[in-house]
Amino acid sequence: MTAPRSAREAGFLLAPPAGVGHLFATMKLRVILPALLLAMAAAPVRADEGMWLFSAPPRAQVKAKYGFELTDAWLEHLMKSSVRFNSGGSGSFVSADGLVITNHHVASDDIQKLSDERNNYLREGFLARTPAEERKAVDLELNVLQSIEDVTARVNAGVPAGLAGADAAAARRKVVAEIEKESLAKTGLRSDVVTLYQGGAYHLYRFKKYTDVRLVWAPEQQAAFFGGDPDNFEFPRFNLDAAVYRAYEDGKPARITNFLKWSAAGTKEGDLTFVSGHPGSTNRQFTLAELGFLRDVQYPYVVPRLKRLEVLLLSWGARAEENARRAKDDLFGIQNSRKVYDGRQAGLFSPAIMDPKAAAEAAFRRQAAGRPEGRDVEAAYGRIAEAVATQRRIYLRYRQLEGGHAFASDSFGLARNLLRAGDELPKPNGERLKEFGDARRESFELQLFSAKPIHADLETVMLTEALTILAELSGFNDPLVQKVLAGRSPANRAADLITGTQVRDVALRKRLHAGGAAAVKAANDPLIELARLVDAESRELRKQWEAAEETKQQAHAVIGRARFALEGPDRAPDATFTLRLSYGPVHGYEEGGRRIPAYTTIAGLYARNAEHRDREPFNLPARWLERKTALDAATPFNFVHTPDIIGGNSGSPVVNRAGEFVGIIFDGNIQSLVGDFAYEDTQARAISVDCRAIIEALRKVYRADALTGELLAGRRAN
Amino acid sequence: MTAPRSAREAGFLLAPPAGVGHLFATMKLRVILPALLLAMAAAPVRADEGMWLFSAPPRAQVKAKYGFELTDAWLEHLMKSSVRFNSGGSGSFVSADGLVITNHHVASDDIQKLSDERNNYLREGFLARTPAEERKAVDLELNVLQSIEDVTARVNAGVPAGLAGADAAAARRKVVAEIEKESLAKTGLRSDVVTLYQGGAYHLYRFKKYTDVRLVWAPEQQAAFFGGDPDNFEFPRFNLDAAVYRAYEDGKPARITNFLKWSAAGTKEGDLTFVSGHPGSTNRQFTLAELGFLRDVQYPYVVPRLKRLEVLLLSWGARAEENARRAKDDLFGIQNSRKVYDGRQAGLFSPAIMDPKAAAEAAFRRQAAGRPEGRDVEAAYGRIAEAVATQRRIYLRYRQLEGGHAFASDSFGLARNLLRAGDELPKPNGERLKEFGDARRESFELQLFSAKPIHADLETVMLTEALTILAELSGFNDPLVQKVLAGRSPANRAADLITGTQVRDVALRKRLHAGGAAAVKAANDPLIELARLVDAESRELRKQWEAAEETKQQAHAVIGRARFALEGPDRAPDATFTLRLSYGPVHGYEEGGRRIPAYTTIAGLYARNAEHRDREPFNLPARWLERKTALDAATPFNFVHTPDIIGGNSGSPVVNRAGEFVGIIFDGNIQSLVGDFAYEDTQARAISVDCRAIIEALRKVYRADALTGELLAGRRAN
Repeated sequence: MTAPRSAREAGFLLAPPAGVGHLFATMKLRVILPALLLAMAAAPVRADEGMWLFSAPPRAQVKAKYGFELTDAWLEHLMKSSVRFNSGGSGSFVSADGLVITNHHVASDDIQKLSDERNNYLREGFLARTPAEERKAVDLELNVLQSIEDVTARVNAGVPAGLAGADAAAARRKVVAEIEKESLAKTGLRSDVVTLYQGGAYHLYRFKKYTDVRLVWAPEQQAAFFGGDPDNFEFPRFNLDAAVYRAYEDGKPARITNFLKWSAAGTKEGDLTFVSGHPGSTNRQFTLAELGFLRDVQYPYVVPRLKRLEVLLLSWGARAEENARRAKDDLFGIQNSRKVYDGRQAGLFSPAIMDPKAAAEAAFRRQAAGRPEGRDVEAAYGRIAEAVATQRRIYLRYRQLEGGHAFASDSFGLARNLLRAGDELPKPNGERLKEFGDARRESFELQLFSAKPIHADLETVMLTEALTILAELSGFNDPLVQKVLAGRSPANRAADLITGTQVRDVALRKRLHAGGAAAVKAANDPLIELARLVDAESRELRKQWEAAEETKQQAHAVIGRARFALEGPDRAPDATFTLRLSYGPVHGYEEGGRRIPAYTTIAGLYARNAEHRDREPFNLPARWLERKTALDAATPFNFVHTPDIIGGNSGSPVVNRAGEFVGIIFDGNIQSLVGDFAYEDTQARAISVDCRAIIEALRKVYRADALTGELLAGRRAN
Repeated sequence: MTAPRSAREAGFLLAPPAGVGHLFATMKLRVILPALLLAMAAAPVRADEGMWLFSAPPRAQVKAKYGFELTDAWLEHLMKSSVRFNSGGSGSFVSADGLVITNHHVASDDIQKLSDERNNYLREGFLARTPAEERKAVDLELNVLQSIEDVTARVNAGVPAGLAGADAAAARRKVVAEIEKESLAKTGLRSDVVTLYQGGAYHLYRFKKYTDVRLVWAPEQQAAFFGGDPDNFEFPRFNLDAAVYRAYEDGKPARITNFLKWSAAGTKEGDLTFVSGHPGSTNRQFTLAELGFLRDVQYPYVVPRLKRLEVLLLSWGARAEENARRAKDDLFGIQNSRKVYDGRQAGLFSPAIMDPKAAAEAAFRRQAAGRPEGRDVEAAYGRIAEAVATQRRIYLRYRQLEGGHAFASDSFGLARNLLRAGDELPKPNGERLKEFGDARRESFELQLFSAKPIHADLETVMLTEALTILAELSGFNDPLVQKVLAGRSPANRAADLITGTQVRDVALRKRLHAGGAAAVKAANDPLIELARLVDAESRELRKQWEAAEETKQQAHAVIGRARFALEGPDRAPDATFTLRLSYGPVHGYEEGGRRIPAYTTIAGLYARNAEHRDREPFNLPARWLERKTALDAATPFNFVHTPDIIGGNSGSPVVNRAGEFVGIIFDGNIQSLVGDFAYEDTQARAISVDCRAIIEALRKVYRADALTGELLAGRRAN
């Protein structure tokens, strides 16, 4: 499942806060024998890789392999029926009266916000029987793409030939801002210039916005996420991971011209499917040097660390139910990440994935060598390798200090933010660490002053483990480790720090923040002083790390432009959380010598529930148990297919050749998790909820007759 | 809890098969500010460290600190009341008619053997209401120490002055064998010469044996191990970890002169207690170099590895109940070890433990430097440091290959044993790897031909993880890793190997073993061939490892003799699974700012059960729930005290100044786990079952009136 990971996980386990990418980091991915990377401009593709631009769809490939014509009308209809959720997922219009369908796990944050002590909609589900009962989402925004315009020439013209580095970037930002402003003024539509192919192309995307969005139906979370962590990223699967909203304009249901007709028949094995959604981010362009870093350095650190923390939280949680409750959010994030990293690590150790990557890189470099930009391309590969060498050298220490892993606790995060805010805010805006920029001030303070409960006992066990790992990695006798531990064992030092710090007091945080560096210093708080102790080395590591990242980014731009010049739009660009089209058939697979059929059924759901004797996380909501006999057991429930997807695609509509809604993407299997850097279609699969299961459940379990009628008819009955 | 770990765990996770020591590796331990190591001959000790010889008891220390006189009569009575279980634990006589009490977890292997499909005594418990109902143990042997004789002079005289190394060892073995043979002939008693102080002293121990031992009472395992893994090694605690046998001679209950009188009053906080039992093995003599190896190399490998395997088995087990059943034994062993290693690692990172160790080593070396053997002692420390440097260098690879960690599966163990048996058995007995010696043939074949079920699915997931870790540690491009993976991913290679091998077929194993190396080769079994592929490097690593071990052992003998010359019997020798006396008061402790009282009560048991709503592993057997109101809720249940214990002490009687039975050792807390290399008494505690809880439960829950009467009266009623 593709829920956003917890704040602690985001802040400490995986990376320092980054851009929008963090929304997708634990979401589903996708893999292949990346034959396509070998394919040049007009060469036939050997697999259905690609998250294609609607402005450069894979017409030839689909025609050649499936005999299907992607017409302009078909594409425009699908594009304008597709919806982007600002909460980090995808969806689609499914009625003329504004119904939007997405995943339950895309909606769940919002459903939580709509709940209160009397109405726990996550646990109980929700159904509005009339429009009056529909509940307005607290802060959802939907975007619908209206047009795509290639502005590459104008952007490039805005960057004079002699300019490089930061100057070039500034010139580019300037012309991009002009284009966006002009477009907004002209059309009234949200207008974003999107960077594609690592800078090989720039496109202007214009969106229609909906900000009045109301919840119509959500199943119980236990039906949406049946099987919990054990079945997460697995198949066979039985998740009703769907929820329905309605878009409003001027206080009335929006009139929608482009919406997807609901398929009564659904699909069968072998049927071609299309997926239209917003994949968040991929790194298919990673060089062998970068993949080697993941394989040799990052994953051997991250994978065991996640499992240590999982064992810590499980065993601490098992000691008392209150412990389990306190650890639950962190545990969920860790278990979800653990599956993601396990899946990716398996890919990095798989010759079937990596050998074609190596061959493709070699082939591209050979081809580029014969062209004018050949020397620049080779130099770019060299600069990437050098930057990676730096990152290999500093990675562990960087993660420990600047990544905060050595002090994994919410308290330390607060302590460091107080310390750094005191030091950074007096500086001119442009010279600050980026998270202290004026533009982020509001969200920074929202976080700093959050009243979210922080449990000292959980903080202490987490910090103890983190200090232990620091001592292991840097060596117990390392001078910084000795300073950090201050003559105490990790357990005693953690207890001292968490007991001694005052940062869990919101009022105190407000006072210190208002008082600036002097007040922060005067507080003489042990955890703030610990943050100060490591701050110089931590900042230095960050500088080195970010310099290496910048080097890689500029080098990738060189390679990306050369690749685009060679291959043009016949190769899909990496994902950027903009609308893309993927395709591929419904298709089972083999695993460990067993054939995994493409479809599960409602009968399978009840069988799995019985196999686990209705015990968590395989228990079913009461009405699912009560109404079992009313359901058609043969109804297809979830299915697997090969389209190229990744986190951000959650909630994407699946359509057939007729452009009808046949299902909704909600996950990928374990084998698909390498999709970040490679596509595979032997075993990797996208997993979708079948349209027929949604109708069967709405009718017989939720008895949502009006909604069912509207979905099937494409409009309200009245 | 101190159960022996599973075979897979013993074989692959921790070390190659060793001697009797493996029985104790996961058992409880003990810690201290090792002030005693600073204390020279007559200096007063600052803590109650020491597993003392009954022939050199801590008379002066106990007199000085507690005003109690350890008389010869008191000691002899306790010695002859103490019992050693050949299954790896301790016990004591508690009636004139042969009753022996030990831990349930010492008895549990035997209880399992007595169970069948109709009678699951582990789950249901057992009670013989009459002697006729007592069930004879399948293969228990009890030893009772009768006398101790110092034979150091005779042993040393048997080793001529000029001899060293292997020749000296051979001469020593010869004179030891003579002494043992003479003693057996003269007394008819089992006679063992025991090496103490790393060779500083040799003592002849004579034992009376009992081989007809019958089960009288065992509670349900759920009462004995209430709280399972979450509460394992923790306190407060509520375990009725006790079982009662009766020793027989000539088919009748044995007449016992020396047995412990059962105390009706029990103990109270502050009371001095003594523990008489058989601690298995300690390494208090470890040098700083050896401790540094544990801290910097071994534990940073073992701790994360255990947690990875735990997560693997938990998550695989959660997918299906049958998976959970298959993984259960391995999981228990891993979780138990995980607590042990976590506890020890915490000690290695604790200045309170390690600083005194460093000071003590420095003080001893200074003192030794002033004596004739000073130069030899320094040279010995140097040789240990060199041997440790070698072990640091080869450790990971040695563990991966010779330790079998890279191929963690029962199938690989069988494959390698077949391969090596074929190569080793044709050699002369003295030239073989030790596990192939003629003396071990029977037990080797018992294991090789065991019909124990091996599950291919579990083997595959374990082997996949093991190969992944190998690739991480050695590097994916390491030539051996590439050969082992043979162009496949870890998952695919594991599936190929486990599907392809025939070694799970017992009949085939018998055929191959009978056919020798030629038959093994001709089988062309993929797993046997994998074992062959790594065998040369594996054997070479073992040679280097064992040479380093031998060097350390000889150097420790030099240091041990010098230390014994300086300190004599006023310092207790390291544990050797021979009878020892420990002492210390009943005493609570502080943890994380909280006071942990010394006693729990029966009320606490029910409160913990209710806190977890009777859910596993905090559920109670039916009769415990039914008979709750009959019990006196204030009855003390478990208690903590400071005597110095370690694995092997399980089941040791706890006695008061009057020599009465007041409880039974069953565990140590987490903080005690560093006891392998240091004693601590600030937080480290032994945990015992209170004699009053045993009586209360026997009376009111088990309604074992005859047994209760016999325990309290010290003889049968009739």
